[in-house]
Amino acid sequence: MCGSENQASTNGTTTTKLNSPSLSSDIVLNLDHGDPTVYEAYWKRLEEKCTVVIKGSELMSYISDVEKPCWFMEQDLENAIKKLHRLTGNAVVDDRYVVVGTGSTQLYQSLLYAITTTSFAGDGNGDGDNNPLHHDQLPVPVVCAAPYYSQYAEEADYLRSGLYKWGGDAYAFDKDGPYIEVVTSPNNPDGTTREAVVISDQGKIIYDMAYYWPQYTPITRPANHDIMYFTFSKSTGHAGSRIGWALVKDEAIARKMTKFIELSSIGVSKDSQIRAAKIMKVICDDYQDFKSHNNNNNNNTHFFEFSRKLMENRWKRLREVVGRSNVFSLPKYSQEYCLFNGECTESYPAFAWLKCKEEGVEDCEKLLKEYKILGRGGKRFGSDSSYTRVSILSREDVFQQFLDRLESIKAN
Amino acid sequence: MCGSENQASTNGTTTTKLNSPSLSSDIVLNLDHGDPTVYEAYWKRLEEKCTVVIKGSELMSYISDVEKPCWFMEQDLENAIKKLHRLTGNAVVDDRYVVVGTGSTQLYQSLLYAITTTSFAGDGNGDGDNNPLHHDQLPVPVVCAAPYYSQYAEEADYLRSGLYKWGGDAYAFDKDGPYIEVVTSPNNPDGTTREAVVISDQGKIIYDMAYYWPQYTPITRPANHDIMYFTFSKSTGHAGSRIGWALVKDEAIARKMTKFIELSSIGVSKDSQIRAAKIMKVICDDYQDFKSHNNNNNNNTHFFEFSRKLMENRWKRLREVVGRSNVFSLPKYSQEYCLFNGECTESYPAFAWLKCKEEGVEDCEKLLKEYKILGRGGKRFGSDSSYTRVSILSREDVFQQFLDRLESIKAN
Repeated sequence: MCGSENQASTNGTTTTKLNSPSLSSDIVLNLDHGDPTVYEAYWKRLEEKCTVVIKGSELMSYISDVEKPCWFMEQDLENAIKKLHRLTGNAVVDDRYVVVGTGSTQLYQSLLYAITTTSFAGDGNGDGDNNPLHHDQLPVPVVCAAPYYSQYAEEADYLRSGLYKWGGDAYAFDKDGPYIEVVTSPNNPDGTTREAVVISDQGKIIYDMAYYWPQYTPITRPANHDIMYFTFSKSTGHAGSRIGWALVKDEAIARKMTKFIELSSIGVSKDSQIRAAKIMKVICDDYQDFKSHNNNNNNNTHFFEFSRKLMENRWKRLREVVGRSNVFSLPKYSQEYCLFNGECTESYPAFAWLKCKEEGVEDCEKLLKEYKILGRGGKRFGSDSSYTRVSILSREDVFQQFLDRLESIKAN
Repeated sequence: MCGSENQASTNGTTTTKLNSPSLSSDIVLNLDHGDPTVYEAYWKRLEEKCTVVIKGSELMSYISDVEKPCWFMEQDLENAIKKLHRLTGNAVVDDRYVVVGTGSTQLYQSLLYAITTTSFAGDGNGDGDNNPLHHDQLPVPVVCAAPYYSQYAEEADYLRSGLYKWGGDAYAFDKDGPYIEVVTSPNNPDGTTREAVVISDQGKIIYDMAYYWPQYTPITRPANHDIMYFTFSKSTGHAGSRIGWALVKDEAIARKMTKFIELSSIGVSKDSQIRAAKIMKVICDDYQDFKSHNNNNNNNTHFFEFSRKLMENRWKRLREVVGRSNVFSLPKYSQEYCLFNGECTESYPAFAWLKCKEEGVEDCEKLLKEYKILGRGGKRFGSDSSYTRVSILSREDVFQQFLDRLESIKAN
């Protein structure tokens, strides 16, 4: 049970309100970002166990291990990442290079750079310049099936790179030549499980697996792609640390990603690397202790059980409200067998992909804004304005206020 | 006095050997990077005082303060940065926006983006697109007087940006139209004090002041430029934390820099921000305590006294070796009155800009490499191969080994 002052127990799951004991109905609910403060309640309980202590003279050097392709990565972090994947069974880590990034945002961009400056599928033009692609093949289009994560486009285009360029909806992509397809699975914004959609042998596929963790979706198999990346922000909720990591099969790609991160920021905060390693280790040790003591009690004190039950509870309450609504609808997710939980479960995505089904209301984001709920409109995701993405990862008081306001929106 | 196991006292300054008690004469000395491990000895003494403790549920959100232009910056860090500048008197902080970055590397790139997408000197073309420069004015050349920091060029060009492009030596720049000039003062690689050199009213100047701290150079006035940036790596030696900051007069530039950092990495590690704030605060409090107790003893226990004496000692020993050499020479620096120290002092740069004066030796970097000393050759800095930049910031045992090997290099 949560040992905190403000508790709201619903459907067997206990959630803790932090910081704002009573929310004014006047306050703006910023659910535009997926700020994962929902997990604070859990980590508050393990406060001491997860504490990191960094002394004045520690972690001062730029360098961790010059012998490794990713020379600024702390060994403790690499070990913890592999341990966490082995625990959850969500990704193959053997024969993979690990590359740490300042969040998955930096990793995505490092991959666009790495792929467009390394050997490409079927390419080997030998024109002698630094880039293995012909000049007329650059910039390489970057595509993703709509609805796609809104930031992919902006992050690909803000510097007007000559190497890569946002190419839009992968379903509409019909150009000949090299391309990069981003596959987000489970998908942001709509939570669906995905595969690549472009049919061609001239592309490279990168897998953004930020949400492929047991609290959001059934783990149906260990992901086994050549290039996949994850983030500390969404796995455990520690977004402020800005830690992400990629698992990469090809050493040349790992080295080029490292080069990008060197040029972009000369590595990644070691303080945060050490903190991430510690927290991942606590999660893993917790399960290990449980197994070794063969203890069947208090199952949901483990992180992924706790967080899955928490997400399940939020989705249950959200679906009840939306079920009574004549304005909104939500996607449906089929049940699948989760290898980690050992049972059939549904998806409980980090975002609600709300659709405004009322005729005459053309802008869902605008409608929500009238009720001081800030979401992100469908157009940003290559979809239409009848959709809005709303974060489900806020603190409990904000989430409850969101439900209350959603309930109050009625069709005329 | 240093309270550690391996001590080497020379010329009144005590330095501490960490990690490698006896260095093999066979080992490669990597002095290519300016890895500031020299400062470990100092921070080891203040180990406990500088310890940061971060609990499991702390610093989880992306957001620090949405009301500020730099919304991911922790208030404690902003306060500590201002305090440190006020203590050293090296920069004006009033009426400045502070923007935190993942090291000064990210800040440099955020400035290239901010300047080329915000109003430019004398510009206001009103062509209605997102960019206030005419298309034929892009990419904007980025220049710096040679010898310049080798990474400026690569960091400007690696993504083949359509916004900016490396333009080379500022002395050779004669194009009409907008440009950005980087002024590094004190300069990396050669330690000189600098001003802008391009004569034009169409440019923007950015000041890289990574080395404008009392241990490296006399503080002759508080720098008072519109755009200047600093780094935790070189001020206190905590390179592994990847924290830099800019002081910016124009809110629009501060907001665009923030936008760049949002798109590049959704902010900056909060764990490292908090650690940097703590260490800066310890430095400032240490001086405050000293003043309030009017204590004249043990003056060099304060960080900037200790580190200046340490750098002075290294340069003295280096100049002695080079003075006896018929192969190498070093730049000379004039004495100036330092407002912080209250006395006339020389510059003690973080790098030695070694010149090979021997006839017939055309490649200084190659010559040093024969003695297993890795430096960075002059050509990388827009200079010639008779120069090599060598870091002076290594641990003591590495530095002493470097001196020993340098001593052994004789002209034929």
